[in-house]
Amino acid sequence: MSEVYAERRVRLRDRCGAAGSPAALVSRPANVRYLTGGSPAGAVLLLGPDDDVLLCPTLPGGDPADGRVDEVLRQLVLPAGGGDPAVAAVEFARKSGADALAVEEHHLTVARHRAMGSVAPGLRLADLACAVEQLRIVKDEDEIASLRIAAEIADQALGELLESILVGRTERHLALELERRLVDHGADGPAFATSVATGPHSGRAGHRPTDRRVEEGDFLSVCLGANYRGYRCEIGRTFVIGTTPADWQIELYDLVFAAQRAGREALAPGAEYRDVDRAARQILAAAGHGDTTTPLTGHGVGLEIREDPQLAPAAMGKLDACVPVTVEPGVHLPGRGGVRIDDTLVVRQEADGGPELLTITTKELLAL
Amino acid sequence: MSEVYAERRVRLRDRCGAAGSPAALVSRPANVRYLTGGSPAGAVLLLGPDDDVLLCPTLPGGDPADGRVDEVLRQLVLPAGGGDPAVAAVEFARKSGADALAVEEHHLTVARHRAMGSVAPGLRLADLACAVEQLRIVKDEDEIASLRIAAEIADQALGELLESILVGRTERHLALELERRLVDHGADGPAFATSVATGPHSGRAGHRPTDRRVEEGDFLSVCLGANYRGYRCEIGRTFVIGTTPADWQIELYDLVFAAQRAGREALAPGAEYRDVDRAARQILAAAGHGDTTTPLTGHGVGLEIREDPQLAPAAMGKLDACVPVTVEPGVHLPGRGGVRIDDTLVVRQEADGGPELLTITTKELLAL
Repeated sequence: MSEVYAERRVRLRDRCGAAGSPAALVSRPANVRYLTGGSPAGAVLLLGPDDDVLLCPTLPGGDPADGRVDEVLRQLVLPAGGGDPAVAAVEFARKSGADALAVEEHHLTVARHRAMGSVAPGLRLADLACAVEQLRIVKDEDEIASLRIAAEIADQALGELLESILVGRTERHLALELERRLVDHGADGPAFATSVATGPHSGRAGHRPTDRRVEEGDFLSVCLGANYRGYRCEIGRTFVIGTTPADWQIELYDLVFAAQRAGREALAPGAEYRDVDRAARQILAAAGHGDTTTPLTGHGVGLEIREDPQLAPAAMGKLDACVPVTVEPGVHLPGRGGVRIDDTLVVRQEADGGPELLTITTKELLAL
Repeated sequence: MSEVYAERRVRLRDRCGAAGSPAALVSRPANVRYLTGGSPAGAVLLLGPDDDVLLCPTLPGGDPADGRVDEVLRQLVLPAGGGDPAVAAVEFARKSGADALAVEEHHLTVARHRAMGSVAPGLRLADLACAVEQLRIVKDEDEIASLRIAAEIADQALGELLESILVGRTERHLALELERRLVDHGADGPAFATSVATGPHSGRAGHRPTDRRVEEGDFLSVCLGANYRGYRCEIGRTFVIGTTPADWQIELYDLVFAAQRAGREALAPGAEYRDVDRAARQILAAAGHGDTTTPLTGHGVGLEIREDPQLAPAAMGKLDACVPVTVEPGVHLPGRGGVRIDDTLVVRQEADGGPELLTITTKELLAL
């Protein structure tokens, strides 16, 4: 593995050099993990000019290690009370003779950035911007393999829930039950806070589970994901509780299903982000649900559950092969509830069989 | 309740006015919640000059509400794609004729701060610094009542775990079990990631549960807390698995217990933060464990699990009455394990009976 991280660091260093910064400081945890294999809490990565070093604070826990950090990488654990590793890194960079240091201005706070600037007046702090996030968009096959396992785990946890009695149980307990099953099946943990939404809550993205109990005739929408070796997937399904769905439930489900399929079918290398969004959105809008939908149809996943790209009306850019994204349109009717269907897929060339569906739980409307 | 939040906003506004800023923008979620009663994801609070307004983004979830926001407060939900509420708030402040706006430079990123500055060149962005965090240190009796309930919930969850079979179960499962019980007993959720540490892991603060199973003769240290109405407490205990603890386990336990008691007994209005830390630390150091301890002996709790004050060697300041803090010394012996004992207490006047212990689970060494 080690050389994978070293190679990623080389690519980033080349970018920085080209942009006129001999050194870069990476502070955003997911970016640190992408470049080192681990992200001890509070650790920052200094790239070049001479060599790379991971600076870790001594945590209150006294236990800086988390994740198997690339063993060839030099690590420096600051003594207790050693202050902010980012500030220590600036002094490192200055001593190494660098005249400029690119930093993540979208992650560093103003106060922290000022503290960094104050310890090395001679050193120019430039903006690394989202250079690492850009590198992270296209995944290698090892990353996709981790996402595939994460998706399998989520499918298993969801499948087991469907076999259990649901009526009378609260959203909160169903969510906890799902998270326990994720771990049972080998997840490092949930990829995000599991969402279980019943009745009038159903179909609302990011709904936080309440004490409402599942009732006959409810829509039940569930959104969960597993974190496997740091990689996070997402699956969302909507079910109906009871023997026979109402007509409005069937109609709404068919509509969202059609929109979600259109989004999935629009996934291809070279497709504009906004066109994927439109493919799903226009079907909902044509049925009069233009404004009850959410501002985005999908997003990238990886070391974070919400990464670039965004599949949204104003998003600029085109999909590449090997980019994992969610497709998750939904409709929520205030007071009545709604439907969301959410898959994680990997964009693939037509010749490679087109989009690879990672979350394979059925999308037919199940009556539970 | 409403007037409580209004009064807190008045106090903050007075501070800002005195500091020469007619308006302030609060972006740190816990601070927004302290001043409004709720913190919809991404919401920011603009204080004055005329009136206060809570600006909320339309979330991907399309569901901005979280927490019962003070109903007298004006709320503005930005349209989908409406951009950063903090930037919108700056335009608000400018239109209202303010010449300066105090912002939380310790929370805003450099990129965000720049975007805010660019929309209102005439407006000076000052630093609000930790003014709200300072207001939050001393709690009112309603806040303490919530912390008291949070502590009761944590005591109940822990007590139930002790009655169950532990040998053979993994750290990960015990942690999930505890979190389920917290919710069963009425918590909104865990106050932080529950830590369960067995054998060689025991005694390590912030240990992340692994798949290691509980074995006969292990030390088992557990740290958990409940989030009740946003208020977070913390309790940590260490147990021994099996019938009879080894001599080294009894010795180490008695030592940490003595240190923790000394820390608790040092809690009083007017006591220096560092003196509370020293009271506990010197007992461990005298026994040769000066360097195996953690950099801090305790910290404030409230809307965040780690708030000011810090009880640490270099901390400046004195305790006030009605400040809830943890006292959590520990010793970890690499390869062998260790002991941590952690309580949440409220600093009280001697006349009021001295420090109020919120987490009442026994601290005698239990053999389970």
